[in-house]
Formats: sequence, C-alpha cells, structure tokens
Amino acid sequence: MFAAESLVRTLINQGVEVCFTNPGTSEMHMVAALDRTDGMQSVLCLFEGVATGAADGYARMADKPACTLLHLGPGAGNGLANLHNARRAYAPVVNIVGDHARDHLKLDAPLTSDAAGVCRPMSRWVGCVADAADVSTMAVEAVRQSFGPERGVASLILPADCAWSDAEPAVLERVDMPGPKPVPGDRIAAIAAALKAAENPVILLGNDACREDGLTAAGRIAAATGATLFMDTFVPRIARGHGRVSPKRLAYFGEQALEELAGSDLLVIAGSKPPVAFFAYPDQPGELTPEGTGRETLAGPAEDVVAALQALAACLEVATAPLDLPGLSQAPKIFPEEKLNPGYVGISLLRHMPEDSVICDDATTSGMGVFPWIEHGPRHDWLCLTGGAIGSGMPQAIGAGLACPDKQVFALCGDGAAAYTLQALWTQAREQQNIINVVFANHSYLVLNVELARVGAGNPGPAAQQMLSLDNPKMDWVKLAEGFGVPGQRARTAGEFDDALQRALKAGGPQLIVAEI
Amino acid sequence: MFAAESLVRTLINQGVEVCFTNPGTSEMHMVAALDRTDGMQSVLCLFEGVATGAADGYARMADKPACTLLHLGPGAGNGLANLHNARRAYAPVVNIVGDHARDHLKLDAPLTSDAAGVCRPMSRWVGCVADAADVSTMAVEAVRQSFGPERGVASLILPADCAWSDAEPAVLERVDMPGPKPVPGDRIAAIAAALKAAENPVILLGNDACREDGLTAAGRIAAATGATLFMDTFVPRIARGHGRVSPKRLAYFGEQALEELAGSDLLVIAGSKPPVAFFAYPDQPGELTPEGTGRETLAGPAEDVVAALQALAACLEVATAPLDLPGLSQAPKIFPEEKLNPGYVGISLLRHMPEDSVICDDATTSGMGVFPWIEHGPRHDWLCLTGGAIGSGMPQAIGAGLACPDKQVFALCGDGAAAYTLQALWTQAREQQNIINVVFANHSYLVLNVELARVGAGNPGPAAQQMLSLDNPKMDWVKLAEGFGVPGQRARTAGEFDDALQRALKAGGPQLIVAEI
Repeated sequence: MFAAESLVRTLINQGVEVCFTNPGTSEMHMVAALDRTDGMQSVLCLFEGVATGAADGYARMADKPACTLLHLGPGAGNGLANLHNARRAYAPVVNIVGDHARDHLKLDAPLTSDAAGVCRPMSRWVGCVADAADVSTMAVEAVRQSFGPERGVASLILPADCAWSDAEPAVLERVDMPGPKPVPGDRIAAIAAALKAAENPVILLGNDACREDGLTAAGRIAAATGATLFMDTFVPRIARGHGRVSPKRLAYFGEQALEELAGSDLLVIAGSKPPVAFFAYPDQPGELTPEGTGRETLAGPAEDVVAALQALAACLEVATAPLDLPGLSQAPKIFPEEKLNPGYVGISLLRHMPEDSVICDDATTSGMGVFPWIEHGPRHDWLCLTGGAIGSGMPQAIGAGLACPDKQVFALCGDGAAAYTLQALWTQAREQQNIINVVFANHSYLVLNVELARVGAGNPGPAAQQMLSLDNPKMDWVKLAEGFGVPGQRARTAGEFDDALQRALKAGGPQLIVAEI
Repeated sequence: MFAAESLVRTLINQGVEVCFTNPGTSEMHMVAALDRTDGMQSVLCLFEGVATGAADGYARMADKPACTLLHLGPGAGNGLANLHNARRAYAPVVNIVGDHARDHLKLDAPLTSDAAGVCRPMSRWVGCVADAADVSTMAVEAVRQSFGPERGVASLILPADCAWSDAEPAVLERVDMPGPKPVPGDRIAAIAAALKAAENPVILLGNDACREDGLTAAGRIAAATGATLFMDTFVPRIARGHGRVSPKRLAYFGEQALEELAGSDLLVIAGSKPPVAFFAYPDQPGELTPEGTGRETLAGPAEDVVAALQALAACLEVATAPLDLPGLSQAPKIFPEEKLNPGYVGISLLRHMPEDSVICDDATTSGMGVFPWIEHGPRHDWLCLTGGAIGSGMPQAIGAGLACPDKQVFALCGDGAAAYTLQALWTQAREQQNIINVVFANHSYLVLNVELARVGAGNPGPAAQQMLSLDNPKMDWVKLAEGFGVPGQRARTAGEFDDALQRALKAGGPQLIVAEI
C-alpha cells in the first residue's frame, strides 16, 4: 500500500468523508488512492477557492472537517481567501496541499514555492510531511488540530515522494478528537451575579452560541434577567425561523453598533470576542464596547459556550416552562409589478422556502436586506461571510449541500462576489445539488461607494466611480450560469422573482436567479 | 496631499503608468488618489488573479512594472498564483496590498490576516509601510526591487492610515533603476574557448536571451561554432517568426529532454539556470544535464545575457555578414472538413495572424501543438506559462495589450486553465482590447491523464478518471464569453476555425473562439 492510500484510509477512519479536489501531477498518487478507496467522496472543483469554500460550508453544517486536495503553493494561494473565511468561522478543515518530491524541491523547478509559507497565514496548524512513514500519524494530527479546541484550518503539506512511497505505513484507527474546553463554574456563577446586578445587560452571541441549543439557553437567560440578546454581525451559522430565539444583529457600521449598545451597563461575550468595527475609519473608534459598560466573557471561541449558556440559565434558576416564541410569520402581500429589491427577495423566501433550508450569504449589502424578513419564517440556518473575503457563497453552498443532502440550499451573492468564484456553478451542476443561487445584480461594488464616502477621501470623480462600477459591460448571469451547466432565470420585479423562485424550487437541482435590483 | 496621492505621483515619476485594481474599503484613499491624478491608468479587474496576471503580461511586454492594488491578505492570496508566474518570468511587478490601519490590526477584526506573510512566498521583496512619511521612499524602493537586478515581484503593504494621513510626504523625482549585472569578460573568454574546443556544444537560451537581440547573437555564435541552440521549455517571452533565429524548444518531459541533450559535450547556460524536470517521478532523474556533459553558465537571470551573447559572438570573431535566416513559411493547405486539432489552429495563425502579434500561452498540451507551426510565420512574441500555475493566459493578454495597444494579442488557453481566471474576459471587454482568446475544449485536464500514467500509480479507475475529466457538464465557452461581454464563436473543424479566426480579426476588440478538439 503506498502512503497516499494509508493517508486516505486513516482520514476515513477519523470520520473525514469528503475531499474537495483540484489536483495536479504532484497529487496523482492521492488521486489513485481516492480512486481505490471506499468511504471518501471526491468532489472535483475547477478552482481551488471553490474547493476551500466548499470545505468551509461542509464543516459549518457537518461539524467535522472535509479535506481538500490542492496543487502546490500556487494552488494553496488560490484557496487562501476561503480558508480565511473558514478560519474566521472556526470551521474545521483539513487542507491537504501536494508538493514536489523532496529531492525535486532542491532543484527549484518552475512550480517550486514555499507551500507551507503560503498556507501559514490562514492556518492554525501547518504540518509538513518529511517521511512516508509519518503520513498517517500526521493525518490524525491534522484532523485533531482542525478540532482545536479552537476549531480551524489544519494544513498538511504532502511531498509527492512521501505519497508514492510504499513504506507500508500503518492505517490508524479512530481516535477521540478534542472538543471545546469547559467553562469553569465560578466564572458562570460570577456572570450570573453580574447579570442579576446589572440594570441593562446585553449578551453578545457568537460562534456556537447561535446554534439552536445556545439560542434557547440564551432566551431563558434573557427571560430571567431582562438582558438584550445580540448576535455578532457575522456568525458562522445561526439557527433561525419560527419557534426559535432570535437575537438582534449587531450593526455593520461601528457608529451604529455603538449606538445599539449605548446605555448598557454590562456586555457579556458568549462564544466569540468583544465587538470591533469591521474596518477602520479616520477618527472613528475601532472597539465597540461603549465607555463605562462593564464587560465579561462567558466563553471564548475555544470554549463550550452552549454548555456554559445552559449552566448559566440553570444557575439563574429560570423556570423550565417553554419560552414564548413567535410562530411562523405571515408573508406580506407582494406587489408584483414593483421593482425588485432585497426585501422582496426576503418576502419570497418567507413565502416559499422549505423548512430547514440553509442560506449561504455572500451578498454584502443585499444580504442585510433579506435577513430581517425571514426572522420568523421557515426554519433555516443562515451562514454569514465571517471573514469578509467575498466569493464564499456559491462554493460554501456546495459543501453545505454535501453535508445535508436532504436540505434545500440557497446562495445569496452580490454580483461582485459571485464573479470571484463562479466556477462553483460547474461543481453544483456536476453533483446535481439542490442549490438555488440568487445573484443580486446592482452592477456595482455598492458597499464600496458607501465606504468611499465614509473614509473621507473626498467626492469621487469619474475615475473613482469607474473603479467601483460593474456596469461596463453588465455581466449576463443567465449566460454565465448556463455556461457552467446551471439553468438561469432573470427577475426585474417582485412578481418575477416570486415566480422564478417557485419554478426553481419545483425544478430542483442547481438553479440561478438573477435579481436585478 | 494625503499619502496615497504622494505614492501614486511618486510611482508615476518612476515610470509606472498602469494600476490593475481590485480595491476594498482599506484602499479607498488609493482609489481617490488614482482618481485625482493624471498619468496612471486604472484598470479594474473582477478578481485579484486577473490583476496580477495582467501585471505579469504588462511587464513582459513593457519591460517595466505596472502596479496592482489588492485588498488585504485574502486579496493578495487570490493574486498569488499569477504572481508566482511573474516571479518565474523575472517580470517586474509592484504589488500593492492595502491593509487595515495599524491600530485596527491589533483588534483582530474579521478581515485581519498577515498580508506580508501571504505575499512573501511569491515576492523577492516585501515592504511594510509603518509611517505615512515613508510612503514615497518605499514606493521608490518597491520599483527598484522589482528591477532586481534579478527582476521580480516587489510587494508593498500599505496600511489604510498610512494612506489617508496627510503628513505631506514628498513626491519623489525619478531615480535610476538597476539593470542586469554585466558579465565579466574573463568568463566570456573562457566560454568562447570552451565552445571552440567542444565537439558538440549546446547553448540553452532562457529569459532575455530569447529576445530578438539575444537570439541574433546566439545565431552568430552557433554559425561560428556549430553549437545547437535550445530554448528553455518555458521562457517569459521569445521573439519568433520569419527572419529570426529559432532555437529548438527543450522537451517538457525530462527523459525526452535528456535524449535531446545526449551526446553534447558542453552545455552553455545563457540567461537562466541548468535544466531540470518540471515534476519529479519515481526513479526518474530531476537534473537534465547528461552525465559527462560539461556545463558552463554564461549568464544567470540577474545578468545581462544579451550583452554577454553579443560579446561572446564578437569574441568568436564571427563575420558580421547577415545570418541566413528562413523567410516566411508557406501555409500548408487546410482540409476544411477535418476535425480540428491544435496543429490546425497553428496553421490558421500562420495564415492570418498579423505581423508583430503577441501570444500568451496557457494551453499546456494544446499550446505545444500550435507552437511549431508558426516558427517562421508572421513575427510574434510568444509568452510561456513560466511558473506552471494555470490561469495565466487571459489575464496576461490584458497586460500585454495595454503595454502594446497597437499589437494583436492572442490568449491560447486550455479549458481547464481558462476556467481559473475567466473573469479576465470582462476586463478585456471593458477596455475593448484587441485580444482573441482561443479556448481548447478537450473537456479534460488532459495533461494529468498522461501524468497519472507516468507516475506509476496504476491504471486509473472510474473515480480517478472523473477527477481529471471536465465533461460532466461540458462548459459552454460561447455563453461564458458572452456573459462577460465578449463575442464567442465555436469551431469543430479546421475550416470552421479558419473562418472564425478571420471573422474575429476583422471584427476587432475582444473575441473568443472555442476550439473543440
């Protein structure tokens, strides 16, 4: 058995079931190993950023890592942006990057580069295989590192000779993986006391606190203490819809977030980190905890925030009677002739989205417009653009769909974002996934027009406006989708979108709707 | 004047005239500076890999750097693959990456990453601006570093606060940039003696040795000594066509290259490095200098190989009578009904390509099939995929076209390669460039099927074949092109391609032809 096969079999034993691949010559033994091994599904992607984005989406929905298979330093480079998003989502990913054989590296052949150096900035762990006999041990370590306890990206650099050697390395059996660290009871008790003493407490929920169990516990705490619940602006995954506790979403712009938190005397961080502005602006604060507000951290990203919230709720001696939670929203009337906007997309989702859908949001400004409409709509998981690196939505949908084949998946993408990784559509078509991609075509990097004004760089002239405009030429997303094998529709009005969405759901498989807004 | 404007004005003074941009919020002051400054053309790209590939193509044709404007670590990551190709082409590039304001970096906001760390593996120099007052000095240093003397990628990390500060930093006047290092006369004399003594010498031409002046000098040396001229398999740019000295192209596969060089008693390296195999294979040699062959380096990549070749020619006392060089090839007859193949594409280029065209080759297997047909055809520059990171062709064509607006540019792309950076078509359409993109649609990572057999990983099963096949679904490149605003045609036969090429040339502007092979 050559080492690549031991590697694949070991990964399968550790529960890794999917490999998102874009291999090259140096990965041919991995391809052969995947070919001759049952239990690992290989999903071909036309671009590495699609593979890493899919691994991110898979991890968020499966709560375990998929692996990737990328081609040397340049392939890893192409995958970095979505590894960055995965890292910021605390999503476990085993990022396998093939490299030249070790003797060949010394020759500085054209494709030689520092593959480990490329991976390092977006990885919490980088391991370089130096001997075929270590392959399986390092594979286990990569899976372990992806679980953290602060989950994230573990990159494994695999030289070709370490993959092709038949040194008979062992296939390792399943071992236990680390979970999040427990939160000490005295911290929970202290925060319970602080919440009781506070007049206007706020709990900021991030990371796993936004899973259903975390939200339920947070809802019980809020009922007991009068605390206001906020969620981080961008969380990896939040359970939403009727019958669920729904926190407010902290505003994107720092000054608005500060206003939202103003008047609170206690800010409890649950699952992530203290709030900060997304970008810096001249003469604007970056830290968003208001002056004079006390701050306590219940659990950071490496800690078991769900158990901590549940313990906190118990500590506050809340009655276990069910929370009074809103039922399914009534959809407002649609005015079919009205020009489409993100709100109407939200209303159509409210009307037609199946229960337990998954929404991958890569639509900066437009996503914010959809989000509130489905708060109490059909149950769904909403996956945010955690790292701000656009081009996440359509790849993430691939991974989410593979993790949850019975769920309807939606990718909401700005046209600027969709253009980053549109090759994802091909894999969606190849795998015939139930993914509806909505591309918001405003023909602009709209958020940047806002930002240009906000940074105080003066009024934009025509050259600056051209640099933020996507209207010359306008992209034809129906043709782009069809070019990759995905049927496309176009909607200019609220009625057209509502019809298009119903048709797409009825047809099944991958679909794309251009929302002309 | 805020610092970003000083930076742009300083770059213009150093001869940087084009900026390939994909900016975000942290680069808004650069956008504003580009807006209010004459002398720097901003070219918007929908993806950072397009921007860096365009900068590579520009540098190869303009012999000076363009700059990029990328958005933090993830944006730099997206640009790495084509920076790798630029690095391997010794192409000068000033790679400007915006970053968070320095105070904001400490807050670990969602888009925070190690931008310098991302750039480092593909850069010969990385500079991090730490004070607005240093911006102009560091801009000059970045340009200087891009010129080498071994030319390459100089990355400048620009925190937002250093760009927006109005510390009135000076705009610096033009300074002299380094050129390649002169080759010592005694080395030239020694190699002249070695060539005279050798029975079967070979000169391997790389980098600038493949420019017209280098080739002419090499031709004179060959005439005087009987040396055989080879070119590196992948050179940044080679002047070809009728009336020009044409070296043989060293074979891609190592064992074939070794055969080609077998029997030579002296290998003279001119412009690059000793030949090595592209990839490693079990039990195959990586170094391609045959055993027993003496090797001398006339000039490495940091040295003035053109002057060295000219001095060597003079030293060998060659008559200055013009070399007897082949005239324009007669195009062979086309059989219009025959199934299209890369050779027929070559023949059609031979028939219709305008003089002084530029060809950007990103078509691994198919490019090799086109190359020989136009050896003595209309004069052209052929730009190779120097770093092996596919997705270079269509972006490179943008830069080549901007450097040489009067030339017809061709991008030859495999369908696998074209899918990496197809967003380049949008910029071609936006700038209305005379670029004809030929996409060779074999619906496969064809070279990998060959490689899978060569690495000895056994016969591929259906899963492996699926991992290398692009036929499910087949991409529709006419639709993809039209989706980005570029007219597309499809050709299945030799005659259809010949007609399509003539129509594309007549129409002008960006065009795409799918060569179904």
